[in-house]
Amino acid sequence: MEKGQLLYEGKAKRLYSTSEEGILWLEYKDSATAFNGEKKATIEGKGQLNNLITSLLFEKLKEQGIDSHFVKRLSDHEQLVRHVEIIPIEVVVRNVAAGTLAKRIGLEEGLPLKQTIVEWYYKDDDLGDPLINEDHIAILSLASPEELVTLRQKALEINTFLTSFFNEIGVDLIDFKLEFGRGSDGAILLADEISPDTCRLWDSKTKEKLDKDVFRRDLGSLTDAYKTVFTRLGGVSS
Amino acid sequence: MEKGQLLYEGKAKRLYSTSEEGILWLEYKDSATAFNGEKKATIEGKGQLNNLITSLLFEKLKEQGIDSHFVKRLSDHEQLVRHVEIIPIEVVVRNVAAGTLAKRIGLEEGLPLKQTIVEWYYKDDDLGDPLINEDHIAILSLASPEELVTLRQKALEINTFLTSFFNEIGVDLIDFKLEFGRGSDGAILLADEISPDTCRLWDSKTKEKLDKDVFRRDLGSLTDAYKTVFTRLGGVSS
Repeated sequence: MEKGQLLYEGKAKRLYSTSEEGILWLEYKDSATAFNGEKKATIEGKGQLNNLITSLLFEKLKEQGIDSHFVKRLSDHEQLVRHVEIIPIEVVVRNVAAGTLAKRIGLEEGLPLKQTIVEWYYKDDDLGDPLINEDHIAILSLASPEELVTLRQKALEINTFLTSFFNEIGVDLIDFKLEFGRGSDGAILLADEISPDTCRLWDSKTKEKLDKDVFRRDLGSLTDAYKTVFTRLGGVSS
Repeated sequence: MEKGQLLYEGKAKRLYSTSEEGILWLEYKDSATAFNGEKKATIEGKGQLNNLITSLLFEKLKEQGIDSHFVKRLSDHEQLVRHVEIIPIEVVVRNVAAGTLAKRIGLEEGLPLKQTIVEWYYKDDDLGDPLINEDHIAILSLASPEELVTLRQKALEINTFLTSFFNEIGVDLIDFKLEFGRGSDGAILLADEISPDTCRLWDSKTKEKLDKDVFRRDLGSLTDAYKTVFTRLGGVSS
């Protein structure tokens, strides 16, 4: 397997072609961004930790029958993934009020929600990734109504597994963002990453933040927080 | 029937009790507000025009079998309405891209939508009336899932009738906001008002704005625009 040309560079990752049809080479960067790119920094070790944590979680999810684009981890900061056509919807799942939800509907941060919330955001940096509904998705032809049913169902399944999995290591899964893609056969696969960049993770006892809010809100060392998550997940840094 | 005490004063209307159980006295004010109250003015005749137009439209809707809180018009700026418990959801129906929709999802103002969009907004001035979805509504206990089905269905029925009704008088119904309430028997009734304050109405030929955007965007005389709508609806000012 050889690494080919750069296909896409996002805020946190670079995607390359490979010598194998349908397989891409994903490289995690050390850059941290927040507030739609308004706050930026380079944090050594962040890309590696996100790659290690995502690889571990995607493997665990696969054991649960939840397929993703993940093929295998290549190195500390690289993995191979299947090529998918990304659906431009950020699927956000929330168990506890925090962040934009707390602000939007006026709930105190930390309030457990009486039912899980699923939100759709239009993945568009220029528009600031706005909250959208099913009618907006139809107008924009982002996904079919049937695909939305699948996205919601998969998001809730993933939430059930991850909530319990994090619970075992003393971490509350507050909320998280998922992206999905269509494989060459049209099947919907989990894509992107699941890491402290895309989840809110709080220590179950102290409620200490172990996620990107450490960067957003200047709460200390981001890599220390991410290392805590990785170590509790049973990971061993190479 | 006697007018009783002031129960509630909103941005555009005052609500009084009456000597009759379950019946309220609604007074339309001449105040104009926009951008969540940031822009304000007193415009003589506006309250009267909105009362006349709303009364006319609620009567037409009743003929179509769509019940509202409207009982009867008392004077140029007053009407009697049934007491309802207002559901704190603004139901917005859109046929053509304009206003916040155009900004939210990046569509050009004036673009006809390939399907009607229904949006829920949380009626809360302090939060700026944010867009919400069905999960937020459940968390906030604003309405039951069954009530949401009814709200959507009624909103679409009202849209079908009003679009055709305005079309006959050379006006495009671009979008509009509805509020609903629960009657004493729990039945859902259309409430609030339907007027150029709550609808975007464009002249079908010239696309001239005949609604509150005239005030929001300083496009000329608001009462001239509202009078045009009222006159075309066949109304005669007293």
